[in-house]
Amino acid sequence: MTEMKLVCPVPVNRYPNVVLAHGGGGRMTQQLIESVFLPAFGNPILGEKHDGAAFDLSAGKFALTTDSYVIHPLFFPGGNIGELAVNGTVNDLSMCGAKPLYLSAGFIIEEGLPMETLQSIAQSMKSAAEAVGIQIVTGDTKVVNRGKGDGIFVNTTGIGQVVVGQTISPSSVRTGDVIILSGDIGRHGIAIMAVREGLEFESVIESDCAPLNGIVLSLIKAEIEIHCLRDLTRGGLGSALVEIAEAAGLEFEISENAVPVREDVRGACEILGFDPLYVANEGRFAVFVPEREAQRTLEILRLHPLGEDAQIIGHVDKDTSPGLVTMRSRIGASRIVDMISGEQLPRIC
Amino acid sequence: MTEMKLVCPVPVNRYPNVVLAHGGGGRMTQQLIESVFLPAFGNPILGEKHDGAAFDLSAGKFALTTDSYVIHPLFFPGGNIGELAVNGTVNDLSMCGAKPLYLSAGFIIEEGLPMETLQSIAQSMKSAAEAVGIQIVTGDTKVVNRGKGDGIFVNTTGIGQVVVGQTISPSSVRTGDVIILSGDIGRHGIAIMAVREGLEFESVIESDCAPLNGIVLSLIKAEIEIHCLRDLTRGGLGSALVEIAEAAGLEFEISENAVPVREDVRGACEILGFDPLYVANEGRFAVFVPEREAQRTLEILRLHPLGEDAQIIGHVDKDTSPGLVTMRSRIGASRIVDMISGEQLPRIC
Repeated sequence: MTEMKLVCPVPVNRYPNVVLAHGGGGRMTQQLIESVFLPAFGNPILGEKHDGAAFDLSAGKFALTTDSYVIHPLFFPGGNIGELAVNGTVNDLSMCGAKPLYLSAGFIIEEGLPMETLQSIAQSMKSAAEAVGIQIVTGDTKVVNRGKGDGIFVNTTGIGQVVVGQTISPSSVRTGDVIILSGDIGRHGIAIMAVREGLEFESVIESDCAPLNGIVLSLIKAEIEIHCLRDLTRGGLGSALVEIAEAAGLEFEISENAVPVREDVRGACEILGFDPLYVANEGRFAVFVPEREAQRTLEILRLHPLGEDAQIIGHVDKDTSPGLVTMRSRIGASRIVDMISGEQLPRIC
Repeated sequence: MTEMKLVCPVPVNRYPNVVLAHGGGGRMTQQLIESVFLPAFGNPILGEKHDGAAFDLSAGKFALTTDSYVIHPLFFPGGNIGELAVNGTVNDLSMCGAKPLYLSAGFIIEEGLPMETLQSIAQSMKSAAEAVGIQIVTGDTKVVNRGKGDGIFVNTTGIGQVVVGQTISPSSVRTGDVIILSGDIGRHGIAIMAVREGLEFESVIESDCAPLNGIVLSLIKAEIEIHCLRDLTRGGLGSALVEIAEAAGLEFEISENAVPVREDVRGACEILGFDPLYVANEGRFAVFVPEREAQRTLEILRLHPLGEDAQIIGHVDKDTSPGLVTMRSRIGASRIVDMISGEQLPRIC
């Protein structure tokens, strides 16, 4: 009997949906892993099927970052939770000046999730990981009862090797630094909102979800003296700038005219009552460099497909009002940019 | 206005419960982090408040492991989800022969979770991390709508440095190896079951939840030739043995008499119709060593408080039926130990 099972396990495709037992750590969990995750993520480290992944590292500085993805809906124009879970963590590593090396993936699945959805998410993670050149080396699967989750939540944690000498951090930002934005803002948030609320625009607005390791690496290779990097996710450009200004204890001034926002995104924001400054992005970042590096940084960014619309949006002032971010508006008035308190849109990533 | 907020932010304790906006990535997320997580996990690396943690590593072999904890209830006799989330990942690293170094923590909180509960979980994580001597260096907080989660789910991912020369893995198990169990089994599962079903026994059965890094390190320090280590969590001793036997392509034989099960746990299992072999543990492991090392291994384990009841429970046979695990019962009969198919008890870790 045992042998029969070993030769011919009940195939996972007999289950059109994930059931609680797929998270029990027994035969069915093993089958789920072998039929969904191993084929998607398959690599020698994961193939060892031990409690953890083992790999060699050379001496140096490393970065560790974690994110749980709870986005609703799971699929949206321009991406899905799987792609987002890989790119988002890759981007956090990139913002530390690190070359992404390995990812872990933790799945919390609600009983009843269609197996097809899970397969599709795993395949997207595979493609996203391949595009970045990293491996998903260890994982975990839990299943919770119907009504105690929401389809699927994905945690990815990544380790990367820091490939810059200088410390990339808010504490490295200096008075006189120039603030450069890598491209137009607000697409991810509006794409999600449109699906969620069933809104239709003339053209479909797609999320800007993308891996930022390549474009950041191009700055590092050119030996740009990067002071700080920050990807603009939840809370948008506005909250990111305030957070950095507070951590740095400095004052920033940006110009509204310089911040690229696509016309369709601006229109959608106006209809929805959103401020593009606080709308989430998943493939945009701000970089702080000394003034003398600003033009060269801009040129390098614009050579990359993800940085074609890069713009200098402002500069770092002295520390008379630490944490204060102001924005000169189109008509020349100056307003204070505050961190968003809660959120314009829950579960955006 | 901005300055006022900076000096006097709305204190988190004004919110008796977590609200959606605490997960929005804005001011309220920052307040939650600063009032709950930073005081609990506070360390210089986390204090940088960047997208990821940065630290130096010396060259060598490292292990990465991830686990999401979805246990219900959140608090149980002998522990809670926070302690479990630290110990569980520490144990997975230990099973790779690695010294745990750094942990990440990802929280998925259901709107409405009492702030006090979150504080208490964070404090437990702090204590558990301190006990092991590791740091929680990076984290992430998401909040999902009421009814789309279940109180709180915690993901921890850990990195550790492998401190053994040999490869600790099912593939290192050899015919003739002795299987040693570190202590009595079944306490974690029965403790959870008792709370969940409102069962009362003569004495309270407490979970065996504990960090295994210390006891494993004592084997490594004594230069025991460890072939494989496995902590016995979901699926219990039975499923773990079958999994290793299959991965190793060998046959195991264990003796029921040798497997320690406390009388109260055995009684509870009988009442509930559970087989202790498949009941979850959170502080027990099996170790595979060559026969000549068996006695010394046993002696070292028994010197540690978590290994006082360690027993030799069986041995590795040849590969005539790869993956087959048999157990000689108390009355001398032999039965096949199969991997549990689903689970006796969902959401046990």
